[in-house]
Amino acid sequence: MAIGNSKIKIALDVMGGDNAPHVEIEGAIQALQEKKHDLFLFLVGKKDLIEKEIKKSGYEGDDFEVVHAEEVITMHDSPAKAVKTKQDSSLVVGTKLVKEGKAHAFVSAGNTGAVVMASILNIGRIKGVARPTIAAPIPTEKGTLSRISDAGAFVDSKAEHLLEFATLTDVYMREVQKVENPTVGLLNVGEEESKGLQLTYEAYELLKNSHLNFQGNIEGRDVFKGTVDIVVCDGFVGNITLKFAESVLPFLRKKLKDYADKSFLAKVQIGIAKNAIKKALIDTDPNYYGGIPLLGINGISIIGHGSSSATGIKNMIYEAAKQQEAGLVEKLFAAMENLGI
Amino acid sequence: MAIGNSKIKIALDVMGGDNAPHVEIEGAIQALQEKKHDLFLFLVGKKDLIEKEIKKSGYEGDDFEVVHAEEVITMHDSPAKAVKTKQDSSLVVGTKLVKEGKAHAFVSAGNTGAVVMASILNIGRIKGVARPTIAAPIPTEKGTLSRISDAGAFVDSKAEHLLEFATLTDVYMREVQKVENPTVGLLNVGEEESKGLQLTYEAYELLKNSHLNFQGNIEGRDVFKGTVDIVVCDGFVGNITLKFAESVLPFLRKKLKDYADKSFLAKVQIGIAKNAIKKALIDTDPNYYGGIPLLGINGISIIGHGSSSATGIKNMIYEAAKQQEAGLVEKLFAAMENLGI
Repeated sequence: MAIGNSKIKIALDVMGGDNAPHVEIEGAIQALQEKKHDLFLFLVGKKDLIEKEIKKSGYEGDDFEVVHAEEVITMHDSPAKAVKTKQDSSLVVGTKLVKEGKAHAFVSAGNTGAVVMASILNIGRIKGVARPTIAAPIPTEKGTLSRISDAGAFVDSKAEHLLEFATLTDVYMREVQKVENPTVGLLNVGEEESKGLQLTYEAYELLKNSHLNFQGNIEGRDVFKGTVDIVVCDGFVGNITLKFAESVLPFLRKKLKDYADKSFLAKVQIGIAKNAIKKALIDTDPNYYGGIPLLGINGISIIGHGSSSATGIKNMIYEAAKQQEAGLVEKLFAAMENLGI
Repeated sequence: MAIGNSKIKIALDVMGGDNAPHVEIEGAIQALQEKKHDLFLFLVGKKDLIEKEIKKSGYEGDDFEVVHAEEVITMHDSPAKAVKTKQDSSLVVGTKLVKEGKAHAFVSAGNTGAVVMASILNIGRIKGVARPTIAAPIPTEKGTLSRISDAGAFVDSKAEHLLEFATLTDVYMREVQKVENPTVGLLNVGEEESKGLQLTYEAYELLKNSHLNFQGNIEGRDVFKGTVDIVVCDGFVGNITLKFAESVLPFLRKKLKDYADKSFLAKVQIGIAKNAIKKALIDTDPNYYGGIPLLGINGISIIGHGSSSATGIKNMIYEAAKQQEAGLVEKLFAAMENLGI
């Protein structure tokens, strides 16, 4: 069945996050009420739980539909196995809504590996894409959001996969984030062309000879600096870097708290600055930007943090809406056709 | 020639860092004056420059000797080439003092690759060590210093190398840092045994069956948490993680400065807390701990940041002295003999 009217239709996995279904429903209703985008939501999960949450909220709009799914894929499930055996899970049912053309996008704060797997199996890949990529946002000193791509959809990728990651993320940055001529850097252990692994050496050659705005190798210290807009790497190092980056804010909080506990003066000093520090570092909070796109899929697929708040869920829905408004999937198709691999 | 008396003899590369030779001489004299350790220093580099700096300082002790080296290996030199062709560089002359038994330790804030190369070529490896490892300190939420090993001495290491890194760093943590029964984690993209690369899968098996206090896989978020004392990984991901970690403090500073510039109130708030924040995060400053040991060498070799301050240089000298006092090299020999690979 084709998508009926002009609304952006999004399938939300209501059972995904650590605080499901409460924050999912709350975030969904916020997104519908704010009317920033012309949305229609499929709320996928256990019908009775969902209806109870909606009733509690008092929301009475008709811009959503509850789609029952009996099973739940948990954070502890093995992605490959769960996606195959839990056919009636919110994650599988939700991705199938995109496959069947009923929804433009799938959004989930659930098991990342399972979202990747279900998106690839059920929604399918764009022609020419061997490996879709997780293009995760990273705050920078410059105040921009760079992207680490691949942040862990796959590990042990080859040079041509890295070229795909860069190509897909380049289109995303131009079309959705409206970054003009985004810069691309290859994450490595030194700036010289000959540095690193066989993989990075080969990827360097491919990127240098591509149409991308390739700036050469960058190092670990360049990520937060914002030296480039797109940090290209294998999903192994990308995932470790992303998770490390996400640990910076809790690390700082703990360090400042421990210091404040040492003396009354320190407590006062840190207390006065607490709010300012929080605001200064707002973009290090995953809920701030919400979703992480999985690029290279024949539809929109947004992955969120398990610990997402209602605001995080709302921002994930907005991320999906922005991608649809930008016509991202069609533009990714065109880019892969031009790449001709 | 054997090492003559009971003093700890250290060869300091005076030409190494970005602010050489000034901070090197200043740090050296501080170390000699504080008398925390019974030291004798070989100050290796351009004699006239060194003597001028010493004269300026007014230091008149006899616990050092200037060793002239005409050449300098710069940060831009290719390590392999420079170590071979610049035989009269402070870096080559300094490592040879250890080889000849005149010094126990070599300390340099110079080109890291060249320090690794010169240490391996000139000082040699401990029997049984295929790949020495850079065991870099990482501050943690707990207030401890964990170690990333290997932080970039090599890339593309094999599983048996990772076992070596863990074994060498375990001895170092016990003997020098006095950590009882240090915990070991394998840096990976998930906690399950089957996660990651062929490398991590094989390394997991080796570590699990070793005598080490192996805790299994850890993720990027566990590094700052201090989940384990020793984070074992290939030098590629280790180097990127270390450099990323070192960029956290500058990132934070820039973010707070930009926020403070936005309003008078913010400037006051951040201004009041500035000193407290600096103190709370003291252990994220590389100068705080000074040197990073290269383990697996037939002598002591300490690598420092190019941007090291005089305090940083002093702490590098202290790190070398502590290793010598702990009899580290002999203990590493014994551990490798027991490992029997």
